[in-house]
Amino acid sequence: MHDQKRIRDYGVIIGKLPTGYYNSITDIDEVTVGHVTLSHEEMQTGVTAILPHQGNLFKEKLIASSHILNGFGKTIGTIQMNELGTLETPIVLTNTLNIGTAALALTKYMMAENPEVGRTTGTLNPIVGECNDMYLNDIRAQFVEEHHVLTALAHTSSEFQEGAIGAGTGMVSYSLKGGIGTASRQMDLGHGTYTLGVLVLTNFGMLSDLRINGRAIGQELKKVILPLAEEKDKGSIMVITATDLPVSERQLHRIIKRSVTGLSRTGSTISNGSGDVIIGFSTATKIPRERPPHCLTLPMIHEEDIDLAFRAVGEATEEAVLNALITAPPKTGRDGNESPALSDLLTTYSITL
Amino acid sequence: MHDQKRIRDYGVIIGKLPTGYYNSITDIDEVTVGHVTLSHEEMQTGVTAILPHQGNLFKEKLIASSHILNGFGKTIGTIQMNELGTLETPIVLTNTLNIGTAALALTKYMMAENPEVGRTTGTLNPIVGECNDMYLNDIRAQFVEEHHVLTALAHTSSEFQEGAIGAGTGMVSYSLKGGIGTASRQMDLGHGTYTLGVLVLTNFGMLSDLRINGRAIGQELKKVILPLAEEKDKGSIMVITATDLPVSERQLHRIIKRSVTGLSRTGSTISNGSGDVIIGFSTATKIPRERPPHCLTLPMIHEEDIDLAFRAVGEATEEAVLNALITAPPKTGRDGNESPALSDLLTTYSITL
Amino acid sequence: MHDQKRIRDYGVIIGKLPTGYYNSITDIDEVTVGHVTLSHEEMQTGVTAILPHQGNLFKEKLIASSHILNGFGKTIGTIQMNELGTLETPIVLTNTLNIGTAALALTKYMMAENPEVGRTTGTLNPIVGECNDMYLNDIRAQFVEEHHVLTALAHTSSEFQEGAIGAGTGMVSYSLKGGIGTASRQMDLGHGTYTLGVLVLTNFGMLSDLRINGRAIGQELKKVILPLAEEKDKGSIMVITATDLPVSERQLHRIIKRSVTGLSRTGSTISNGSGDVIIGFSTATKIPRERPPHCLTLPMIHEEDIDLAFRAVGEATEEAVLNALITAPPKTGRDGNESPALSDLLTTYSITL
Amino acid sequence: MHDQKRIRDYGVIIGKLPTGYYNSITDIDEVTVGHVTLSHEEMQTGVTAILPHQGNLFKEKLIASSHILNGFGKTIGTIQMNELGTLETPIVLTNTLNIGTAALALTKYMMAENPEVGRTTGTLNPIVGECNDMYLNDIRAQFVEEHHVLTALAHTSSEFQEGAIGAGTGMVSYSLKGGIGTASRQMDLGHGTYTLGVLVLTNFGMLSDLRINGRAIGQELKKVILPLAEEKDKGSIMVITATDLPVSERQLHRIIKRSVTGLSRTGSTISNGSGDVIIGFSTATKIPRERPPHCLTLPMIHEEDIDLAFRAVGEATEEAVLNALITAPPKTGRDGNESPALSDLLTTYSITL
Repeated sequence: MHDQKRIRDYGVIIGKLPTGYYNSITDIDEVTVGHVTLSHEEMQTGVTAILPHQGNLFKEKLIASSHILNGFGKTIGTIQMNELGTLETPIVLTNTLNIGTAALALTKYMMAENPEVGRTTGTLNPIVGECNDMYLNDIRAQFVEEHHVLTALAHTSSEFQEGAIGAGTGMVSYSLKGGIGTASRQMDLGHGTYTLGVLVLTNFGMLSDLRINGRAIGQELKKVILPLAEEKDKGSIMVITATDLPVSERQLHRIIKRSVTGLSRTGSTISNGSGDVIIGFSTATKIPRERPPHCLTLPMIHEEDIDLAFRAVGEATEEAVLNALITAPPKTGRDGNESPALSDLLTTYSITL
Repeated sequence: MHDQKRIRDYGVIIGKLPTGYYNSITDIDEVTVGHVTLSHEEMQTGVTAILPHQGNLFKEKLIASSHILNGFGKTIGTIQMNELGTLETPIVLTNTLNIGTAALALTKYMMAENPEVGRTTGTLNPIVGECNDMYLNDIRAQFVEEHHVLTALAHTSSEFQEGAIGAGTGMVSYSLKGGIGTASRQMDLGHGTYTLGVLVLTNFGMLSDLRINGRAIGQELKKVILPLAEEKDKGSIMVITATDLPVSERQLHRIIKRSVTGLSRTGSTISNGSGDVIIGFSTATKIPRERPPHCLTLPMIHEEDIDLAFRAVGEATEEAVLNALITAPPKTGRDGNESPALSDLLTTYSITL
Repeated sequence: MHDQKRIRDYGVIIGKLPTGYYNSITDIDEVTVGHVTLSHEEMQTGVTAILPHQGNLFKEKLIASSHILNGFGKTIGTIQMNELGTLETPIVLTNTLNIGTAALALTKYMMAENPEVGRTTGTLNPIVGECNDMYLNDIRAQFVEEHHVLTALAHTSSEFQEGAIGAGTGMVSYSLKGGIGTASRQMDLGHGTYTLGVLVLTNFGMLSDLRINGRAIGQELKKVILPLAEEKDKGSIMVITATDLPVSERQLHRIIKRSVTGLSRTGSTISNGSGDVIIGFSTATKIPRERPPHCLTLPMIHEEDIDLAFRAVGEATEEAVLNALITAPPKTGRDGNESPALSDLLTTYSITL
Repeated sequence: MHDQKRIRDYGVIIGKLPTGYYNSITDIDEVTVGHVTLSHEEMQTGVTAILPHQGNLFKEKLIASSHILNGFGKTIGTIQMNELGTLETPIVLTNTLNIGTAALALTKYMMAENPEVGRTTGTLNPIVGECNDMYLNDIRAQFVEEHHVLTALAHTSSEFQEGAIGAGTGMVSYSLKGGIGTASRQMDLGHGTYTLGVLVLTNFGMLSDLRINGRAIGQELKKVILPLAEEKDKGSIMVITATDLPVSERQLHRIIKRSVTGLSRTGSTISNGSGDVIIGFSTATKIPRERPPHCLTLPMIHEEDIDLAFRAVGEATEEAVLNALITAPPKTGRDGNESPALSDLLTTYSITL
């Protein structure tokens, strides 16, 4: 993953399960991620696009689910996803005031691929998530344009950068520079080895609550860098979860709901002003748009096989949040607002993880 | 069905779809129903048991779902049903203050069949629904005993009585005698013909709201029999839905949620004091308790096949409510409270449906 | 209301409760509605805006709730509305593929009024609902532009047109021309007289299911005008409910959920392809954005006062749907697709309601 | 609190907020707790009763809410609690197969106090929670009888024991002896100082996951005491939350949902076989059963005041779980099954917290 120094490179091992090859959401076959970064003075924002598979999602939908951990957020598309249990477009992440832009662009992207939309078939359900980057970004300027979204969708790959990049460009987490992070876990069941990956867009938390693998590092840092400042958590987190485990929508919902265990272990209190939204999909089954002349057949794990996935999603979420924090460089943005980098602070104050 | 004169025998045809053989929830293969009726002076109550299949439900569970239309009710077991998407015991209906009795009896019934419960496997999730029959029944006396529940469970069949019977003994609906009713619909899809059946326990509604196939018969009756009385709806309805359609839990939930269309067409306003609870199961797939060495395979319809089931559940619910009303004889109970029979009123006032 | 002939003018009286002055959602004090209509050949679409009060909604929020009756829809903003229980922007309705446009326009409209958004306070939560008008409208062209939305927001009033107007321009319902309809009911409680109003955007239903006050008029029409055509319901409905009843978010949710009784009585089966979304607000309490130095005080009805509101919302929804159908003129749109008017058919076939 | 050595007595301080006087759910005025313990050989079970206030709850209800974190559980009463937003009986905790017994006893207890139940008013909604104590207890014997429940209800107080007591007698948590624990936090808002207390019944978790204030103590213990054993989590947790903070049902639901942060920090993965149910109530407002001639007035905090409660519930839950573990003595039960005490292990292996 692009030679960034990640939390494991500091010797921090979260949990018990092995990671996938990249330790990334892209360890799930066919999942790719692309960024467009807009970073110049007051403009500190961007777009991150996740392609769940490389075919035509509208024609071959995936089992999907969403969970609203805290609804102070504006994510688009969860109503239909939960009613029908499927995902039919890529997932786009951006800043809060540009979700309309991203929805329009994603709609056009899908219409171009699917000329029957709005003609012989119905409409499509774009999925757009967001966090509020107003501290570093002049969010009122709504810098993201439709072509930025299309560019992110057009340039995705298995390896991608973490930290202050794409939709994460202007995000702040635990009073430090946050942004995009990812991690994955492998699950060994009797009938196969499966992978679950998480991508987070982190924009939540107060410094004094931060824990790294249980250690209250946030309190250590708070003592040295900003002992007097009042802290306020106004942020959000988007958690995108992908897996190749064969699951029903109900099972998938149970799994993604457990990402809260990892979030909590980094120190989150799931504060009021935080839009904490989790979206998940499984690549194990493709649901055809066209009705076949027979029933569908859905492979799914027995419920007693699900505990490993519960563990995997918690571990991957915890590690993804830490990866976002540890890879992000410091950033200065709107009105000179500054967000320090965790990695710099560790060096400056000679803290070994 | 026991030579009772049902709503179709009056020439009233609800909806467009054909009925099953019995026009009953028992048109779904293996589903049987049993009643125990306690009817003597102040004691006007009972038990109705529904067996979803004739095997060991704990070992071969069914896909199931519940929907709370209005939660002024005390139904037991919906939490686990919705989390796991399965039904693992028969369904028992009784009066509100005897749900504890029924839960205990059902637990013992299942333990007897499954000696590993509480030893090598965990616990079981009894499903008990209720309505409040206090107008005719001395509900404070809690007349139902565990052996009544066991008797109902032990004596079920494909043919059963409707009206003032079993759990329906003391129920009142639309200010008339209500109780147990049932109906079914067939659904012709390209890949097979399927059946959906509904059993209701009706205990809701005010006379002036009653409609029979659109006609405001309640207002006609109200004018002649009780023009001055203040009406108050304090009742409830339990709707049990069975189908052999292959569906996921999510699909089943969507289907049973539509029973409200039929309820509404009989005149319900889903009043505050009403516990309106819908429980559904599909017999198409048996989910083994023991984890097999491979994934499960769940057959399910394509989502575009679901509209017929939406129509079926509305029609069957509407007809089941009317069957409960039209088959119930008049009843006098606690403190001389009386509940008239719809069929008598039609005769007395020479009303032709 | 603009001299249109409404369903009451045909002698059809739905339910038992009295209407408000206009028999409209605007009977709730301060609620106003505005339309922009785009109707020319292939372009048959538009925008309808509802202002919940005439002040600054972001500074004085209203208690609000949403209910997803069927989630095959793309409505924006319900996540936060349900988490926080408040509405902080007007409500905009348009076609499905322009929800991004409407969200952007509504965001800009609110930012102009509230310069602190994205600076000293967080972001805002635009509410945009939609139905799919592709049968009459070239929906792929995404005709709605941001200025159309701003114009609708700027020109609202207490009296407004129903039928093929605003967001209803291209909508089709029960195989007839549908669109915007409204109605209201008064509720007399001991402590005051309150009003509940409903505005619908109707785009659902098949002709043969249509009922007017119980009468199966759709089957009568189907026999004479299109006996051979296969019918398919791919539509949606948006239901906006306003009241001045003092209620908590929970109570409001219970109330708006009951709009399904009215929908069902017009003949809806809540079909799969239908995005049936209900949004409600109460004007009884204004929740200040700024935290005061004391607790808030929320007036709310006792739960036993709620049944009248349950009845009111069902009646108003039923009548609003019928008003949309009866006021809409016939329309020809994309590819020569035609949608007949109910009022014309009644005349042509000499049917008296 | 009965001279038991609690986690704070080991120097472990969870979180940032001050505790209440007892550091207990009984720090909320009028809340009392009572236990009945059945501990003899194969019988290791009991009852714990929580009285939310000392008056007649049916006549003066409290704002209440429940949250199903994981629904592999049989808790009774949540349907009506969430529909109506109120609690009208005490809360009883016991073993899974005795919930029917507890529901019957609680119903009788309430009927004795309220002779109008089932006569002039409707029914009542008993709240019964459970965990499965089958490892130590012969749960199939259903040892709990109605009089045990009535005794627990009759003997409650502000001070009560924690650990292997009452409903906690046979519970096992993190492969150690678990049971009842409690803790509380104070919240200083501008308009007053409020308290939030938590009582847990812990029966979940595997040893190797246990963390105490971030430290992976479970892994340390696992290495020394049972390195080879396969661990399996089949347990549950009940979390009862009380506060005197003035909140709406929606706000209360948001608060109790956050108890997951504390649970997660002790090491929970919220496993499949776990019934994790949270019930909360606020004593700030009493809702009269009888409808008054005017509206009710509900005091509630501004939403921006809620973050302290989110923090409080997480901290109190985390500490309550640790209190249950650290106070419980070792226990031998059914078939000689043994459950070690955390406090003993710390001594034996010279581990200092």
